[in-house]
Amino acid sequence: MTDAFARARALFDLPQGVVYLDGNSLGALPRAARERVRREIDESWGRELIRAWNTAGWMDLPAQVGDKIGALVGAEKGAIVAGDSTSINLFKALTAALPLQPTRRVILSDTGNFPTDLYVAEGVCRLLGQGHALKTVEPEAAGDALDESVAVLMLTQVDYRTGRLHDMRELTRRAQALGIITIWDLAHSAGAFPVDLAGCGVDIAIGCGYKYLNGGPGAPAFIYVAPRWQARIEPALTGWLGHAAPFAFELNYRPAAAIDRLRVGTPPVLSLAALDAALDVFEGVDMPALRKRSIELSEAFIRGVEANCPALTLASPRDPALRGSQVSFRFAHGYAAMQALIARGVIGDFRAPDVMRFGFTPLYLSPADIDRAVAVIAEVMRERLWDKPEYAARSRVT
Amino acid sequence: MTDAFARARALFDLPQGVVYLDGNSLGALPRAARERVRREIDESWGRELIRAWNTAGWMDLPAQVGDKIGALVGAEKGAIVAGDSTSINLFKALTAALPLQPTRRVILSDTGNFPTDLYVAEGVCRLLGQGHALKTVEPEAAGDALDESVAVLMLTQVDYRTGRLHDMRELTRRAQALGIITIWDLAHSAGAFPVDLAGCGVDIAIGCGYKYLNGGPGAPAFIYVAPRWQARIEPALTGWLGHAAPFAFELNYRPAAAIDRLRVGTPPVLSLAALDAALDVFEGVDMPALRKRSIELSEAFIRGVEANCPALTLASPRDPALRGSQVSFRFAHGYAAMQALIARGVIGDFRAPDVMRFGFTPLYLSPADIDRAVAVIAEVMRERLWDKPEYAARSRVT
Repeated sequence: MTDAFARARALFDLPQGVVYLDGNSLGALPRAARERVRREIDESWGRELIRAWNTAGWMDLPAQVGDKIGALVGAEKGAIVAGDSTSINLFKALTAALPLQPTRRVILSDTGNFPTDLYVAEGVCRLLGQGHALKTVEPEAAGDALDESVAVLMLTQVDYRTGRLHDMRELTRRAQALGIITIWDLAHSAGAFPVDLAGCGVDIAIGCGYKYLNGGPGAPAFIYVAPRWQARIEPALTGWLGHAAPFAFELNYRPAAAIDRLRVGTPPVLSLAALDAALDVFEGVDMPALRKRSIELSEAFIRGVEANCPALTLASPRDPALRGSQVSFRFAHGYAAMQALIARGVIGDFRAPDVMRFGFTPLYLSPADIDRAVAVIAEVMRERLWDKPEYAARSRVT
Repeated sequence: MTDAFARARALFDLPQGVVYLDGNSLGALPRAARERVRREIDESWGRELIRAWNTAGWMDLPAQVGDKIGALVGAEKGAIVAGDSTSINLFKALTAALPLQPTRRVILSDTGNFPTDLYVAEGVCRLLGQGHALKTVEPEAAGDALDESVAVLMLTQVDYRTGRLHDMRELTRRAQALGIITIWDLAHSAGAFPVDLAGCGVDIAIGCGYKYLNGGPGAPAFIYVAPRWQARIEPALTGWLGHAAPFAFELNYRPAAAIDRLRVGTPPVLSLAALDAALDVFEGVDMPALRKRSIELSEAFIRGVEANCPALTLASPRDPALRGSQVSFRFAHGYAAMQALIARGVIGDFRAPDVMRFGFTPLYLSPADIDRAVAVIAEVMRERLWDKPEYAARSRVT
């Protein structure tokens, strides 16, 4: 598989002299995405104009992209549709899920969830005005907090701060045994390691197109609904492209069959086409092999950093089976240290109050990149570069 | 202003041999949009990677694009934000508006509204579960149907079928005199003729980026909220980029100040950048002069078609002051006739059951284009080309 990774890396356009450890925030540029967007603009939009909705296949993109993502996350064919943002898709998921368990009022989540998920859930509770409430517990307590008051268990599989991985299979099983509908956010999972939505029996899932799927800045997100629910859910966002016959221009809403009812308005074609092309990078990539490589890279990184930088404290689970594809370290001057790293071409990111975050994207990272990153981090710490005024002055959350 | 229009036309990349009369459905390609997207991909995404959110100004795009649109529709600075689809923005608008008139339960609209608007309103009523109902009347009856049971008047200014124009100023005045909140959909207005949101005292408006604004297929839409309401509305779609401090990663939602609270998730940057560049085409364009040119073109078109094609019946208002920037004709074999036109390079579109629709975009249409379109329509009708099997066979709504 080493050859396969060298081949995959050649499909990306990476700047010289950069070790990019922030693909968990914005994936790198696949060359095919650039070429595809150029083609959609010059040939489809420019030459075909309105006809391109049919001749260039724009109308089918949400389903086509959905199926490509589905192949990476273990979804049934036709169970995912791409479009809108992750936040909007979570809104669709929650408003679809709550009526499936109509006598219960609790959405259970954890304090390690990405804030937008918690905000959207708060917003749904307030909007419905039926006494629903969001309850958050510590991530480790999520399983034991399940009970028959809970309508929906809403979790992000990978903690954006630490990379801690929830046990999707076990939590889904425990939740469903209590009649709870499960919503999984795959923001840091899709494209990062094998996910088995169908095998785990997950009810609904959402995810992000611009992290490990490399779809570009603000790439459209996606939603998965288990086939058993698709005909039963009533969309809240009832846009025309989710209608059974959008071009009949009927005056009343009738939901489309299956997952198509979760389409809403006209999708952002240029952004969606970039994601469509980016997903082709995964063709021929064996996801278990990708997971193995991700673990090799992150283990080497942890060993290197711990051997050279005693001031950095591992914030991620030490057991790689309990981590996604990122590693975080705590350091009181983490913001300044990250600025010093970025200035030296090692790009990670910082999350308040003290987390230095490094993502591992095996499609375009090599062991040599990890060696270089470790060497630069060691230099920044050894030379106390984080204390230089140009970095320290910005040592605050902005 | 003729020179100004020749200059504007040179900013677009139009295929040879095509007269494009469907800019009301998908605007043509501005050369600057192509170059801008190329730059965002190659230089910002490809070279700057995650840093581009700051260095390339991605984070500011929704407000920046909003203000450019605002200049075309008479909005106050900082009163519009771009992002998400038109349908999603209407959902934001309705869920923001209804609580401002909490004792009323009727959303009033008309049967000429674009179906997605009616569908979204239906969805909001069902979702809220508080007895709200959508009431639709004939377009001409909208004013007289206003009464104190109505919470929200929701109208699209230009009828997508006929181009009929609602009197925004008068209907807003009559509605507000009864305490009704007004929501205007500017899908076929923004960029097509002068709009005066602030001057008309409109409460909330939404619109589309890919028609007369030429932002590209599925370009992000926009929402306007009058400054007097911005701090009072409670967003229903509470995504992280609408939070008061998105990068503080607080666990609870606090709305951002002003219009920013209607941002939701991460915007589709490539699509938004195309729209941003496309809007620069309007720099130096005088909107009243654009309206004058639009009327000249459409009047010439109506005269030419009526003189040459007795079988076509004008479906648009004859008085240009009562039309947007499109003209429609009814013809029983309209679908086949439109196919024959498109095959000959005159691109309009068809709306069931019998409407042939032609949009007039003065930025890239000239009097010579109108002459050519009229000649081709006359040929198609004179030669009964709509009856040829290759067009007639497809003579159905698809």
